[in-house]
Order: sequence, then C-alpha cells, then structure tokens
Amino acid sequence: MSDRLVVALDAMGGDKAPDAVVKGAAIARERFPQIQFLLFGVESRLAPLVEKLPILKGCSTIRHTDNYITGDAKPSTALRQGRQSSMRLALDAVAAGEAQCMVSAGNTGALMAMAKFALKTLPGIDRPAIATFFPTRRGESVLLDLGANVECDAENLVQFALMGEVFARTVLGVSRPSVGLLNIGSEELKGNDAVRGAAARLRAPGSPINFVGYVEGDDIGAGSADVIVTDGFTGNVALKTAEGTAKLFLEFVRTAFASSTLAKLGYVFAKPALQKLRERLDVRRYNGAVFLGLDGIAVKSHGGTDELGFASAIAVGADMVINGFLDKIRDDIARMSAVTDLPEKPQTAAI
Amino acid sequence: MSDRLVVALDAMGGDKAPDAVVKGAAIARERFPQIQFLLFGVESRLAPLVEKLPILKGCSTIRHTDNYITGDAKPSTALRQGRQSSMRLALDAVAAGEAQCMVSAGNTGALMAMAKFALKTLPGIDRPAIATFFPTRRGESVLLDLGANVECDAENLVQFALMGEVFARTVLGVSRPSVGLLNIGSEELKGNDAVRGAAARLRAPGSPINFVGYVEGDDIGAGSADVIVTDGFTGNVALKTAEGTAKLFLEFVRTAFASSTLAKLGYVFAKPALQKLRERLDVRRYNGAVFLGLDGIAVKSHGGTDELGFASAIAVGADMVINGFLDKIRDDIARMSAVTDLPEKPQTAAI
Repeated sequence: MSDRLVVALDAMGGDKAPDAVVKGAAIARERFPQIQFLLFGVESRLAPLVEKLPILKGCSTIRHTDNYITGDAKPSTALRQGRQSSMRLALDAVAAGEAQCMVSAGNTGALMAMAKFALKTLPGIDRPAIATFFPTRRGESVLLDLGANVECDAENLVQFALMGEVFARTVLGVSRPSVGLLNIGSEELKGNDAVRGAAARLRAPGSPINFVGYVEGDDIGAGSADVIVTDGFTGNVALKTAEGTAKLFLEFVRTAFASSTLAKLGYVFAKPALQKLRERLDVRRYNGAVFLGLDGIAVKSHGGTDELGFASAIAVGADMVINGFLDKIRDDIARMSAVTDLPEKPQTAAI
Repeated sequence: MSDRLVVALDAMGGDKAPDAVVKGAAIARERFPQIQFLLFGVESRLAPLVEKLPILKGCSTIRHTDNYITGDAKPSTALRQGRQSSMRLALDAVAAGEAQCMVSAGNTGALMAMAKFALKTLPGIDRPAIATFFPTRRGESVLLDLGANVECDAENLVQFALMGEVFARTVLGVSRPSVGLLNIGSEELKGNDAVRGAAARLRAPGSPINFVGYVEGDDIGAGSADVIVTDGFTGNVALKTAEGTAKLFLEFVRTAFASSTLAKLGYVFAKPALQKLRERLDVRRYNGAVFLGLDGIAVKSHGGTDELGFASAIAVGADMVINGFLDKIRDDIARMSAVTDLPEKPQTAAI
C-alpha cells in the first residue's frame, strides 16, 4: 500500500498527444482525487492545456523537455539518443522514486527498451512480459506475454504466471485468480517442452499459484481462467486474432442490419441495447498494457487512443500502485523460488 | 484431373455416425452426380440407412467391418489394433487407388497417425500439416498448420506455404492465392528464426509462391491473405481463439437483444437478416480439415457435425480430387526445390 500516488506522464507520446494525455489526466483525477501528475513534455504546449482544466490545478507539475521519441524510432536509437526525451524522463522519475508509476502512449519498442534500462528487472525475474486484460463471458481476464518474448522456456512461463496472477489481483481485484497455460488440443502432441515443464512447476506442492492446467484458444473468450499465460509470439497472435474476429463480427452485424428495410427498422428499436453492447466492448475500457517484471510500474497506452482511453491506462497504473503490486510480486517470487528448489523440478525446455 | 470420383467413407467415425455420414453422402451426391461411395462400417447398421435414400442406390458399396476407432483411442493403439477398423480400411482404399479420397469424422490423432502410415508422406514434404478454411471480410481464407506440428523450422513453414497455396487453388478456386506468414507486430523482435528464414525463402527469385510477407493475428479475420501459414501451436491457438471470440460475440449480441422490450421488438424485425448472418457464419459450411502433404487425400470432418457438415467435408475432398490437388502439389514441390538449391538459400531456423 502507498499513500502517495504520483504518476509520471509522457505527455508527448501517442497520436493524439499532448491533448489526449492532459485531458486523460483530468478524467483520471476524478476517480483518484489523491493523484498527482508529473507531466513531461514541451511546456509551451502543455501549460495552456493544463490551464484550461481547473481539476488539474494544484496536482500537476510540468517538467519541460523538447526531446521526444517518434513512433518509428528504433529502440536502440531511442536508448542512445533519447536520454532527455519525455518518455525517458518519466521513467527516470519512477526509478528515482519521485513517481510511483508512469504512463506513455508512445513507441512500444522504445518504451520497453528504456523501461528495462531505467527501471531494471526485478530480482528473480529473467525477462519482463507485456500483459493486458480483456472482456470475456465471465467478466475480464489477463493475458500475457503479448510480444516481449518471442521464445520462452518453462521458467519464463512460470514467471509470467506469477506476474499475471499478481496483476489480476491488483487490477481486476480477484482475490485468488485462476491461472491457465495456453496449449493446443491435438491428442498426440499436447504442447511443447516449455509448456509441459511450466505446468509441472505450477502444479508442484507449495506453488503459490491457483493453477487450473491447460486452456485452449477458445477459453480466452470463455474466460475459463482469470490469467492466461503463453509465450509472446502466441499471445500476440491470439490477442490480435480476437480483436480481428470481433471487428469482423461487428461488420457482419452491421451489414445484416443494413440489408433490408425491415432490418433497418429493427435496428432503430434495438439501438439502445446495441449501444450498451458497444460500450461493453469499447476498447478504450481495456486500454493499458503493462510491462510486468520491472522494478517499477510502466503502463503502455494504445498509441491511437483518446482521453478516455488514456485515463483507463492511468487507472491501471494507479490501481497497481494503490494495491501494492510490487510488494506482492516480490512476495510471490520468494514463495515460488522455494518451489523451484524442490528436487521434483522438471527440466525446462531443451530447445 | 480425374474422371473417377470414388470417396471412401469411415461410416463409423464421429458422434452422429453412421446416420450423419450416410445422410451426408446423399447430400453430397446432389452436388457431385458422378460420385461413388465406399462405405466402411457395420453392414447391418449401414444397409437400412442406405436403403432409405434412393439417391445413394447404384453409387454406394458397403464394405463390412465390425471394428472401429473410438474417440478416446490413443493414436498408437489405433495404429496397432485398428488395422481392420472402418477408418483404416477407408484409408487403405485410397492407398490402393480404389478411392480418390477418404473422409472421417472420427478421432483426429488416430486418423493423422493412420493416414501418415497408410498414405505415406509426399516426396519433398518433411511433415504433413492440417489445414482448414474459414470466413473473412473478403471471402474465405486457408489457415495451416492447425496442430500437427508443434514446433516448426523454416523449411517446414515453406512446405506448409506450398501445400496451403495448392489447397486454396483447388478448393477455394483462387487462381493465384496470396500467401502470408503469421508474425507479431512487436517492433524490436519481429518473429523468430523459423519465420524469418521461411520469409527469405518464399521471397527468393523463382519461388512459385505469391508471397505477401508477414501478416498479424487481425489479418486472419480481415482476409489479408488467401493462405495464412504458421506453426501448429500458433495456428491451433489462433483458430480456436477466433472461434471462441465469435461465440462470445454472438452471446453478447443475444444478450443485447434480450435486454429490453424494445430490443426484443427490434429483433423481430431484424430476424431474417440475422438469420442470413447466422447462415453465413454456419460452422457446417467450413467443415472439413485436411491433412496436407500425404500421398493421398484424407479429410477430417468435425466429430460433432451433422449431415450438412459431413456433406461439406465430402465436398472438400471431392474438389481436391476434381481439381487435381496431388498433381499440382507435386508440381509446386519440384519448382520450390529448384529455389532451394539457389546459393542465396538462407539458413533455416537454428533451433
């Protein structure tokens, strides 16, 4: 738990920066009255925006910098040349303990590289992962990794399970989240070495994880587990496949309603209900992917989001701070390493 | 091209066998008047069913066997103990040239193992793959592998591209299908060695493939490529994720329509249009996964499908026979091996 809630914002990152960032901060303030903002960016652009929003007065400090990371910058270039960038300075504020978390809608690769460098990986975690939450039949679930690690061994997956579980506890408020490992249903070849090795570890006596075993692709939408763990390649494909299918479906429904006069009439009556459905599936509600496994909290907002979406990303970071994400994860790592030392420890993937 | 069209049916495989199989055959006969069936299974159960369907008379031969493969049989057990099973005898009929293709709604793992054994892998193909087609915004696309190969190297992916391309030509009727490699969008780590190696090969001068480069998960629903190639782990997860998302979405829409009296009224008007949408997305239309890369055509119908779905699976096999799938794939393998021998050949995945 933390009494302070200082959020560092990369005010120059994202397609709609700095507008969406500053307005998003104002919206977040309504939900978190104790919040304080450090806004990193071009002062001459930020000051007039803050000025217009009375709710931000007294809780916002602008830290001027002219430098920012473009959307197409290479991570290596960003690392070398972006030491004074708004993104990097926001991360540095977290590293220095000035802020408890940071949010950026900028370049994902650059943010990942700089976050690893500035915040460092938590002791006991080999590789950070990217996680997000999404709507399911039963509510909301967490999926990770979403692309930080293309190839993973069993130990990586076990660590993702830990990180995802704590993320679900602190952000979704589930007290004992169920964790599933994404696998395939082919009868003969049930998964690869990494998946089988991770399952053995997560099932071992003393594991702090409420492991429900293997889940399959259709369990993502069904919400069969609160946390779904997989490597970054599969997770990235799964998330984008789900998004693409939802988009396709929405278009099919739209076409169906436009296909006849009767259908159009039906739409008029059903509109309020369909509007509610749209709100339920609004991607802005699910904005805020998190880099887990770092010694500090960094949230990546979607680059194209508006102020509502950016406010959701701030809320994700704020919830993690308020609910003591870092302490909880340190605790879980300690409990899991005890399990690691058991003689039953299976071999990790022999790739 | 083939003038003969003899289809061997595992009449005992699937949840609704032999009913759905025999009735499915009757439906398929309407579309393919030249078709002949060899029905493998328990004669006392099949004969009365065939008797009731005049369209099957004169084109159906029952081959009696008491043995069949259960849904939970291990592939290794099926191989050893299922030599007289309806599934195996149907495969043997293809291997012997008596039938040009076979269809089974039985145990996938057993079918894969027995098909590999009975039909053998095509020269030039290292590992068979499972492919299917599915609806997209632009029409229909092919996805493979769906789970036959959990880990794949670059050479496997190149072979999947070849097989998928010929499948799209012969079943979807696309004259020059575009082929994409499934990859992730993370800026720093664009894919793994296998994916990068396969892309280099498919792009090489002389490649017979119309390669459009990398595609991402959301391109599956968008139909950005006619054929989407990936390893069996990712493909299985992607397909099931898409199915799960569609199911979730359908449920959300249903809930929305039931949420108020007005919405219910809207549903009444929109019903015919929504009915059409349901038909468009009817899974039975997309039934029929194919084992590609074998020296013979074997189609796997979904185990739970009804006669309409089973008829679709027969149609997939029949289209492959009529359009000369095996000849075309032999041709493509020869053209691709010429490319393989170029000095520019990049390294395959160093796993």
